[in-house]
Amino acid sequence: MTTTQYLARQLLAHKVLHVFGVPGDYSLKILDTFIKEGLQIINTCDEQGAGFAADAYARLNGLSAVCITYCVGGLKVTNPIAEAYAEKSPVLVISGAPGISERKKDPLLHHKVKDFNTQLKVFEALTVYAAILENPRDIGEQILKAIWLALQYKRPAYLEIPRDMATAEIAMPDEVSISGDFHSDPKALEEALTEAKQMIEAATQPLILADVEIQRFGLQKELEQLTEATGIPVSATLLGKSVIAETHPHYIGVYEGATGSEEVCAFFEKSDCLILLGVFMTDITLGSTRSVLDMGKCIYATSEKLMIRHHTFEDVRFEDFVRGLLSLNIRKTLPQNLPHPSIPSIDRIDENQSVSVNSFFTIVNTFLSSQTVVIADVGESLFGSIDLVIHESTEFISPAYYASVGFSIPAAIGAALAKPHLIPFVICGDGAFQMTGIELSTTCRYKLHPIILLLNNSGYSTERIFLDGPFNDLMNWNYSKITELLGCGKSCVVKTNRELKKAIERAIETRDSFWLIEVVIDAADRSKALRRMAQRIMP
Amino acid sequence: MTTTQYLARQLLAHKVLHVFGVPGDYSLKILDTFIKEGLQIINTCDEQGAGFAADAYARLNGLSAVCITYCVGGLKVTNPIAEAYAEKSPVLVISGAPGISERKKDPLLHHKVKDFNTQLKVFEALTVYAAILENPRDIGEQILKAIWLALQYKRPAYLEIPRDMATAEIAMPDEVSISGDFHSDPKALEEALTEAKQMIEAATQPLILADVEIQRFGLQKELEQLTEATGIPVSATLLGKSVIAETHPHYIGVYEGATGSEEVCAFFEKSDCLILLGVFMTDITLGSTRSVLDMGKCIYATSEKLMIRHHTFEDVRFEDFVRGLLSLNIRKTLPQNLPHPSIPSIDRIDENQSVSVNSFFTIVNTFLSSQTVVIADVGESLFGSIDLVIHESTEFISPAYYASVGFSIPAAIGAALAKPHLIPFVICGDGAFQMTGIELSTTCRYKLHPIILLLNNSGYSTERIFLDGPFNDLMNWNYSKITELLGCGKSCVVKTNRELKKAIERAIETRDSFWLIEVVIDAADRSKALRRMAQRIMP
Repeated sequence: MTTTQYLARQLLAHKVLHVFGVPGDYSLKILDTFIKEGLQIINTCDEQGAGFAADAYARLNGLSAVCITYCVGGLKVTNPIAEAYAEKSPVLVISGAPGISERKKDPLLHHKVKDFNTQLKVFEALTVYAAILENPRDIGEQILKAIWLALQYKRPAYLEIPRDMATAEIAMPDEVSISGDFHSDPKALEEALTEAKQMIEAATQPLILADVEIQRFGLQKELEQLTEATGIPVSATLLGKSVIAETHPHYIGVYEGATGSEEVCAFFEKSDCLILLGVFMTDITLGSTRSVLDMGKCIYATSEKLMIRHHTFEDVRFEDFVRGLLSLNIRKTLPQNLPHPSIPSIDRIDENQSVSVNSFFTIVNTFLSSQTVVIADVGESLFGSIDLVIHESTEFISPAYYASVGFSIPAAIGAALAKPHLIPFVICGDGAFQMTGIELSTTCRYKLHPIILLLNNSGYSTERIFLDGPFNDLMNWNYSKITELLGCGKSCVVKTNRELKKAIERAIETRDSFWLIEVVIDAADRSKALRRMAQRIMP
Repeated sequence: MTTTQYLARQLLAHKVLHVFGVPGDYSLKILDTFIKEGLQIINTCDEQGAGFAADAYARLNGLSAVCITYCVGGLKVTNPIAEAYAEKSPVLVISGAPGISERKKDPLLHHKVKDFNTQLKVFEALTVYAAILENPRDIGEQILKAIWLALQYKRPAYLEIPRDMATAEIAMPDEVSISGDFHSDPKALEEALTEAKQMIEAATQPLILADVEIQRFGLQKELEQLTEATGIPVSATLLGKSVIAETHPHYIGVYEGATGSEEVCAFFEKSDCLILLGVFMTDITLGSTRSVLDMGKCIYATSEKLMIRHHTFEDVRFEDFVRGLLSLNIRKTLPQNLPHPSIPSIDRIDENQSVSVNSFFTIVNTFLSSQTVVIADVGESLFGSIDLVIHESTEFISPAYYASVGFSIPAAIGAALAKPHLIPFVICGDGAFQMTGIELSTTCRYKLHPIILLLNNSGYSTERIFLDGPFNDLMNWNYSKITELLGCGKSCVVKTNRELKKAIERAIETRDSFWLIEVVIDAADRSKALRRMAQRIMP
């Protein structure tokens, strides 16, 4: 079996059916073999789009792959791959490259930067595993290791395939030996769980804060069982939004120190036992001006660290700890006086009025169901989404921590391919659309039908609250005319609440291409979350 | 003076009047100060566009700057910066970043990837100097050093400005001490020149091959004087095309082993003394199947290395060596039987016929003058350009070695700002346009008026000759409708030679916005150069 055949079969074995990318001469043989092995190649307009699409696909599918050419392709996916690293998304980067035999004497082959290790060095800074496949004896093991580490850490890995290695016959690796021994130390686990149980039972108001690792490690069911068995209420971070159905009676809403609701913040601060599950301790989550978290009341478990109060436990796996909590038979206390995310009332919306940020999210909320996946871009698209109530089984994805603008439209490509039964609802701003909106072309090419809600508020509105200047302005496009340029898709512009409602209804009814709904918003309008952030961060 | 004020004044002192970028919260203060100091900020749709624009600006202006935010911005310019490194273009990367005081205890601030050194590590692999400005005592020196090294090596440098350092008062550096001692060793220089003179005078058919370093070090006049004083004919690489007027009687045409004309290849191979000035020994220049260059007949001078036959000289500056050659009074021999680039005859073009790759370049050629700058993208746009005859003072820029598709339209923004008196003629393919064509928006915003010639040949045609598959196809857009989307610009579609001619005439006459001319070409048509490459590279 050759390198590329083996790699293709490993991808298929992990349910990766699509590979995103843009071709280049160093990667042609890889793409050709992938097709022959039954993978579908998804060509985006630009490699950046392939990177974001692969990130979204990995979040929903558990693993993904992006295949690009050397440097001119690879260096265009550094930002999406950094995002996948930062927010834990297992993307396999497969880069074509000059052949090993061509590299002798260090010639200037096209696309080379400093030396033949430049791209490797860059990806070493952005992945959990990076290797050049140079020896047919080792290649099989390198492929298995890359995939295993990506799955273990939920983070990207990098494989560089010199073109003369793409078709090389390789030695078959021992699949069992690679995956290695990665179990919890039973004594450490037991000690940690015992201490956790004591803390929780001694507390009068424990609270679980759940973040994205719950989703990445597939522990949503366990989380639900845990809150139901113990009565401990649950809050979610913005990045982790939708790890539990937001309609669940024990769910109190999104906790975001900088932007979240006062009610949830107050409940969080009053809690005397915080169970932080898979939480990224980010500046956005913890808030820029809130008091420092008292670790003395925290049980802090992630895939990288288990810390109870001020001490850490080594060799305890995140999954084992979460499942362990469930098996502890913690005394059940019925939660009382819980805040609940208030479902914004559609009845208060005047249909004849212009759309505001608030009415926009209220209206969108009425269309969400277990058949939708919401993909929010950065800025108001994300802040406003705090108030969406995500139903059971509904998915919500966003780059809420890494915050790379332009993620959402290419991400919709990945989401639509990973979960073809869901309707992608993309919420993005004009700034994001100008970066990557052109990838709607790719949705036409592969017959995907996302619904794009473009919040046009005339510029980078989130930045305006920090420091405004002409650099926060944007050219105002006739966004809906993108259908003319691409020769496909459907679009409209809406200004009133009634028009917005009708447009979404029509888009859901006639899903045979992408639908772009441009929603014109007053440039001075702000979401509640953004107003809270402005108040809390500003002096 | 503060960090940003000092940096702004250094940029202005080096005639950098424009800074390209996309804003982000970590970079807002920098942009604001830049404007107050008199720099103009050019906001592109995406950071990739800013990177390519800055590269082109540096090629024509001698230095440029791109200012972006941390990671989500910085990691989007890695590919254009790698291009600037590979093809020697001094771009200063200025990145906003989390403040030094915020970095204590290594918190998860938004946009962070692995640790606070991630972006620094990435740019260390892509620049000649990379530093985080952390101490007001050293910052002035770091800024001077970055600029000095960028100018010395004609390569990018990286400055990361933590946001609390952006407005810090800094110590004024000693400007003289930084620029240091970088002179040629006079004895080594003399020995090298003496040997070079002997070799040249002993040869019967010496030939100068001039590459892009001649342009980067501003030695075009010296090259012209050298060929006129000695009678030695000149060839140029594709990357170096236009370092000498292609109408000069001593100029024999572009030498590209893989794609160049048989006549020039034959002359090059017959030469018994090759004077390679500033040449990148790339696979494209030297050709994939030509015989290996005999270094025993070469004088090989670049900014990094001086090699005569098989020995090297240390400490000889490229500029000193080139100027030294001029002062040697080499015996003049009148060149005889020189090939000349044949100016394709417009008379042979049937105006009623469909445009072919050949007729396209023949027609474009008639519009080139000392008032134009040609910017060629990768693929047929570049291969076909081999046969353009660039007039005296005409500029020609392309990523002929690094070969990153999508360079040309953002590059036109940089070129138009660096040389406002020149008309940018962009030649790009459909693949390139789908990557970065949307940056035409930026030309509207800043009232720039490039002429875009879009060769629509239905896919990645260069790749088709290597290995074809569905991955080389593209969605066919209604490219000319981009004016509808952007709400600005002018466009048309042409199919015959007459229509092409009329369209370019009209575009030159009415230059009050960009002009996009879509030129429909048969997908099976190939330039002469691409056909030569197919023959020489294929088995």
